[in-house]
Amino acid sequence: MRLRLDISYDGQDFHGWAGQPGLRTVQGELETWIQRVLRLAEAPALVCAGRTDAGVHARGQVAHLDLPDDSQADQVAAELHRRLRLALPEDVAVNAVRPAPDGFDARFSAVWRRYVYRLTDDVVDPLARRTIARVRDRVDVEELQRAAQLLLGLQNFAAFCRHREGATTIRQLLELEAVRAPSGPVEITVRADAFCHSMVRSLVGALVAVGTGQRDTDWLVELLRRRVRAGEINVMPAHGLVLEEVGYPADDQLAQRAAQARSTRTMEA
Amino acid sequence: MRLRLDISYDGQDFHGWAGQPGLRTVQGELETWIQRVLRLAEAPALVCAGRTDAGVHARGQVAHLDLPDDSQADQVAAELHRRLRLALPEDVAVNAVRPAPDGFDARFSAVWRRYVYRLTDDVVDPLARRTIARVRDRVDVEELQRAAQLLLGLQNFAAFCRHREGATTIRQLLELEAVRAPSGPVEITVRADAFCHSMVRSLVGALVAVGTGQRDTDWLVELLRRRVRAGEINVMPAHGLVLEEVGYPADDQLAQRAAQARSTRTMEA
Repeated sequence: MRLRLDISYDGQDFHGWAGQPGLRTVQGELETWIQRVLRLAEAPALVCAGRTDAGVHARGQVAHLDLPDDSQADQVAAELHRRLRLALPEDVAVNAVRPAPDGFDARFSAVWRRYVYRLTDDVVDPLARRTIARVRDRVDVEELQRAAQLLLGLQNFAAFCRHREGATTIRQLLELEAVRAPSGPVEITVRADAFCHSMVRSLVGALVAVGTGQRDTDWLVELLRRRVRAGEINVMPAHGLVLEEVGYPADDQLAQRAAQARSTRTMEA
Repeated sequence: MRLRLDISYDGQDFHGWAGQPGLRTVQGELETWIQRVLRLAEAPALVCAGRTDAGVHARGQVAHLDLPDDSQADQVAAELHRRLRLALPEDVAVNAVRPAPDGFDARFSAVWRRYVYRLTDDVVDPLARRTIARVRDRVDVEELQRAAQLLLGLQNFAAFCRHREGATTIRQLLELEAVRAPSGPVEITVRADAFCHSMVRSLVGALVAVGTGQRDTDWLVELLRRRVRAGEINVMPAHGLVLEEVGYPADDQLAQRAAQARSTRTMEA
């Protein structure tokens, strides 16, 4: 029996999603509490759609876990949801728990991940400062938005990724939109089939370099031709980034998508 | 020369607005930094529109301070703004500094203060938890909104105020609106000519008691007839409250309004 969990968290006090011995992580915290409230002999293994780094937030993280088969999957899911709601610390919340459809894999069935990066070149609102990064120079949002369009499509993002042996850095960038929100900050939406490590924050850092006039679009286009990480890209701070949503195909395509993603990608989503 | 400052802060790490020896307060922090960046012999005295309690936030606080006369008031204001932007800690921000019009008094010229209280009876969004209070029971927002209308107008709010010798507790409640925001939390807007100590949080506490079915509207109406604080009202937690905006009359009515407010009210706004 597989359950799907929809999860939000404030990344500030977590060492990222992925469990690490002796460190407080979102995965570790959730696995500990799920084991306790379900009185399991061992902690269950949670698999997520986007392994966020230390300090990165989520409003739409998705994960799955497997439990012994039970004919009353709906009740088990409802009970787990109710108990987690009472038990979890206030910086992580499980918004929904439900039986996963056949073939669902939180990581490999996903067809896209959508992140939003928030930054400001003005006074930071004290009440929003934990999710908005400060940029010293004035950002030309229209220029940034024009530059962003050059990165769309199926590309090799090696310049924006931390290298991992045997892992591809080819990704399909589906959406890259920068707008100045009515409340002031610049919101940069980045949606792709998947991301490699630190890719969103590197993309935003490169775009900010163009939007503030430090670099031009030729430099940006040239980055796409490199096959190693570009050291001159400023990786933006983690606290401006939120994993907002994960997209899945229709239920009858979940298994096929998972098989396809497993075969073409060995890197972390 | 009088300057007007528009101020935002995250109240979490402040012991409220009002300066207190040995405690970190918004007034104390601002006066210290204004003295430093302007190299004044003494700290200036800041007068604000709403003396918020410990833990209460502000997005639209207004204050004034007096400096020695200077023919270049605009430049002094711009320079103070620029330097404060660089100097202030990240939980307080000065959004604007400008020469105050004749007769302006941040406290006594104000014609209304608008606060918003945010609460939820559902899972608290981890990314918004510092500004949203949790209520255990389900809140009937329509019932709460109906009850709120009974409190409008010129009334004696003694039941909702901490008693202060010689101070009136008569206030004009101009607006009291409860809506469930699209993102989930219930937002209660409270606007009045002025508020006495803990009045907004007591009003919301009484309304929540009605909205969750613990009390009825007869009780609420009866509270308005009391002349002492009602011990049974649950004062809501500070972190759900934000001073959003302060209203002032047209420039030619500032002095008249200040004289009127001074004469009819001896209590803190």
